[in-house]
Amino acid sequence: MKKFNTSPISGMQEFLPSTQAIFDQIKAKIGRVYHCHGFQHIETPTIDRNEILFAKAGGDTEKQIYRVIKTDESADASTEALRFDHTVPLARYIVEHESNISFPFRVTQIGRNFRGERSQKGRFREFYQCDVDVIGRNDLSITYDAQVIYTFYEALRSFVKVPIKIRINNRKFLNGILEALELSDKSADIYSIIDHSEKVPAEKTTEALKEIGLSEENVVKITTLINAHGTYQNIESLGFDNEGLKELKTVYSELESLGIADSVEIDLKIVRGLDYYTGTVFEGLLPDYPAVGSIGGGGRYDNLASNYTDQKFPGVGASIGLSRLFYILQENNLIDETTVKPIDTAIIPLGEASRKAAYDLAAKLRESGKIVDVILADRKLGDLMKHAVEIAKEGIVVGENEVKSGNYQVKDFSTSENKPLKF
Amino acid sequence: MKKFNTSPISGMQEFLPSTQAIFDQIKAKIGRVYHCHGFQHIETPTIDRNEILFAKAGGDTEKQIYRVIKTDESADASTEALRFDHTVPLARYIVEHESNISFPFRVTQIGRNFRGERSQKGRFREFYQCDVDVIGRNDLSITYDAQVIYTFYEALRSFVKVPIKIRINNRKFLNGILEALELSDKSADIYSIIDHSEKVPAEKTTEALKEIGLSEENVVKITTLINAHGTYQNIESLGFDNEGLKELKTVYSELESLGIADSVEIDLKIVRGLDYYTGTVFEGLLPDYPAVGSIGGGGRYDNLASNYTDQKFPGVGASIGLSRLFYILQENNLIDETTVKPIDTAIIPLGEASRKAAYDLAAKLRESGKIVDVILADRKLGDLMKHAVEIAKEGIVVGENEVKSGNYQVKDFSTSENKPLKF
Repeated sequence: MKKFNTSPISGMQEFLPSTQAIFDQIKAKIGRVYHCHGFQHIETPTIDRNEILFAKAGGDTEKQIYRVIKTDESADASTEALRFDHTVPLARYIVEHESNISFPFRVTQIGRNFRGERSQKGRFREFYQCDVDVIGRNDLSITYDAQVIYTFYEALRSFVKVPIKIRINNRKFLNGILEALELSDKSADIYSIIDHSEKVPAEKTTEALKEIGLSEENVVKITTLINAHGTYQNIESLGFDNEGLKELKTVYSELESLGIADSVEIDLKIVRGLDYYTGTVFEGLLPDYPAVGSIGGGGRYDNLASNYTDQKFPGVGASIGLSRLFYILQENNLIDETTVKPIDTAIIPLGEASRKAAYDLAAKLRESGKIVDVILADRKLGDLMKHAVEIAKEGIVVGENEVKSGNYQVKDFSTSENKPLKF
Repeated sequence: MKKFNTSPISGMQEFLPSTQAIFDQIKAKIGRVYHCHGFQHIETPTIDRNEILFAKAGGDTEKQIYRVIKTDESADASTEALRFDHTVPLARYIVEHESNISFPFRVTQIGRNFRGERSQKGRFREFYQCDVDVIGRNDLSITYDAQVIYTFYEALRSFVKVPIKIRINNRKFLNGILEALELSDKSADIYSIIDHSEKVPAEKTTEALKEIGLSEENVVKITTLINAHGTYQNIESLGFDNEGLKELKTVYSELESLGIADSVEIDLKIVRGLDYYTGTVFEGLLPDYPAVGSIGGGGRYDNLASNYTDQKFPGVGASIGLSRLFYILQENNLIDETTVKPIDTAIIPLGEASRKAAYDLAAKLRESGKIVDVILADRKLGDLMKHAVEIAKEGIVVGENEVKSGNYQVKDFSTSENKPLKF
C-alpha cells in the first residue's frame, strides 16, 4: 500500500528508462552538432544570487523565479534563486571570466532551468534548454547571426525527421520603418498587434491598428509588412530601406552560402522577446504541423551584460527548449518509442558454478562495446528469461554444458532464433 | 567597470571551457561504464515534495535541504524542495512506476544534487553524483552486491590513473558480534568510535571504548576487529561466525570471480551511513593519497522505499561524488589540464569572397568528425590567428589563392608546421 502520493510534482517530466534513452539520444545529438560547430561547453550553477537573476528579469519572468531557502532560514533572508534561463548566468560568467576567454566566444550550455509558472500541457516548470551563443568583446560580426541560425537548424535536423522551416526577421528593420512613418511612440502597441496577427483573422489586425490611431495609409503599410514573407528579394521589393534591411540581406546571403536558404523564410511577423533582442530574430517551425508553433529560436542582442558591467559584449544566440519539443514530438507521434531496448545482451548463469564464466563472457562482450546485464536473481529459468526479454535484445544462457564446451547460443528475442556466439 | 559581484556563489563549481571539457569527459566515462554494465539511465526531477524529501532525511541532512518558494509565495507555504541525493527520488520513482519496471532493476542516475551546508574546501552545495543501484522486488540476490562494487570500481578505473582500493565490510557481521557480546545497547557509541578510529591514535580508541563501560576483554575484542583487514581468510581467522560473515564470504568470492579481488580489502572499520545501510558497505580509496579519504562508496539497504509503501524493495547501490572527486584529483595534480584544446580546426576566411569556401570546408571537416570554428571577426589576420591558436589545435587560412587552387594548408599550432589538407 502506498503511504504517499509518489507522482512527480506537476510540471515535471519523468520518463521510464526506454523513453529516457530516446530523450538522452536526442540531447546527445544536439550536443554533438553544437560541439562540432565549435561551441565550447560550459555549465553555470543552478543557483545564483538574487541580484544577478532579478537584474534582468522583470514582469512575468520575475514572478516565475523560484527562490531557494535553507530549512532554518526565513524566506525574507533568502538571497539566492534558481536560474530561469541560460542567458543570465552566461552574462555573469562572461563578466567574471572575460580575462580568460578568447573572443569571439562560441559557447554552449545544455541543462535544466526552472520557472514556477502554472503548469499546463507541454509547459514544464523544470525544463531542458539547449543553447548556443557567440559573444564578442566590443563588436561582433553580423555574419555570426547566420552561423548561429545554421547551427540551430543543423541541430534540429539531427533528430527532427519532418521538414523544418526557419523564419527570420530583423528588429531594426521594423523599428526603422516605424521611425520613418513617425510611429515610434506607438511601437510597443504595434509590435504586440504584429505578434498576435498570426492567431487572429486579418480584419481583427486591421481593426486593432486603426484603434490605436493609425491612418488608413499607415494601416495599409503595416499590414503589407505583416503579410510580407519569403526570400530577401521579396522583402526588398517592398521599397523600404534601412540598416535593418542591410543586416537581413547579409544574414540571408550568408545562409545561402551555408546552403540552408531553402529552409529559411524572412517573415516580418517574427517579433520575439521585446526588451531583449536588438537585431536579427528567428524561430523554427514544423510547416506540416502548424499547430505546434515555435520549436525554438533566438536572436541578436547588442549588449549581453549591460546590467553587470560597463564593458560591451554583443552576442547572438539560439535556444532549443528540449523538454517542450520532446513533448510535442511525442504528442504528434514523431518519436518512435517502441524500438529501443536498453540492454543489448542479457546473460543468465544457471547456478553458482556458471557465474564466473558468465562474468568473463560479460566482460568480453562489454569490451566489444555491448551493454550487458548479468541476471542473478534466484528464480526459475522461465522467470529469468521473461525478465531478459523485457529488458534486452538478445540473451545467452550459461549452463554447465556451455561452460564445458565454451559454445554459447545467442537468442535473438525479436525473432526467437538461436545462433552460436562469435566474437 | 563591474556593477555587481559576478563570482558564482560559494560552494559552486564553475569551470572555464578547457576544464569543463575534462570534467565532461570523466562524467561521460563513468556514464559509459555504468551503461555497459547494464544500468538503465533515468532522471528524476530536481524539485520534489517536502513530504517525500523530508520523510527519509533527518538530523543534519534535514537542516541542509534547500526549500524552494515562488516569488509571490510565503516561506511557510513552501511545499517543495531540492533533492539532496538520488536515492530518495529513486525510492519515489520505484513506487510510482513499479508496475512498468522489470525487476531486478539496474538503474543509474547522474546529475546535480543540492545541500545547503556551509561551504568548505572540496565540499560543494551543488554537486554531481553518479549513482548505480540494483533494486529487487521482495528479494535481491547478495551476488548483486559484488556486481555493484565491480561496476563502481570499473567506473573509477576508467579515469583515475593511480591505484584504487575498495574497502568492504558488512554491517550484519559487526551487529552479530555485538549481539553475541551482549553489547547491542552500546552499538551506536561503538560504531561512532570505530568510525573515528582511523583519525585518532590507537590509545584514544581504547580509552573511548573503556569510557563507555566496556570490559577489558571486550575492548580487546573490539580493537582486534578494528585492526582486522585484508582478505576474507584474514577475517575468517578471527573466529567470529554469523550471517554477516557468510555474506562477506559470498561477496568476496564473487569479487574474486569478477577478477578484482586484488584491489579489494575487507576492513571492519568501514561503517558508513548508520541509519541507512543494513548489510554490505564499501568505499573507494587512493592508497597513494591517504589524506584524500573516501572517493565514493555505497552499500546494501534492505528496504529502499519503506517510507512510501508497504511493498519491499531491497537494493544495493554505489555513488561517486564527482564534484568532490574532481576537486581532489585537481588538488593532487592527477588531472592533466594543459593538453585539452576545445576546437580541432579553426578556419579563417580572408574577406567576404572566401567565406563560402570556408563554410564548405567546415561542413566537410565536421562530417569527418572534426570540431570546427569558422572565425569571422573583422580583425587583422594576426589577431585572428592569435584567437585561433588560443582555442584550436590547428588552423586553415582560406584566402583568394586557396579558393582558386583548392589547395589548403593546415597549420599545426603545437609544431607550427604546415602541411597540405587531405581528406
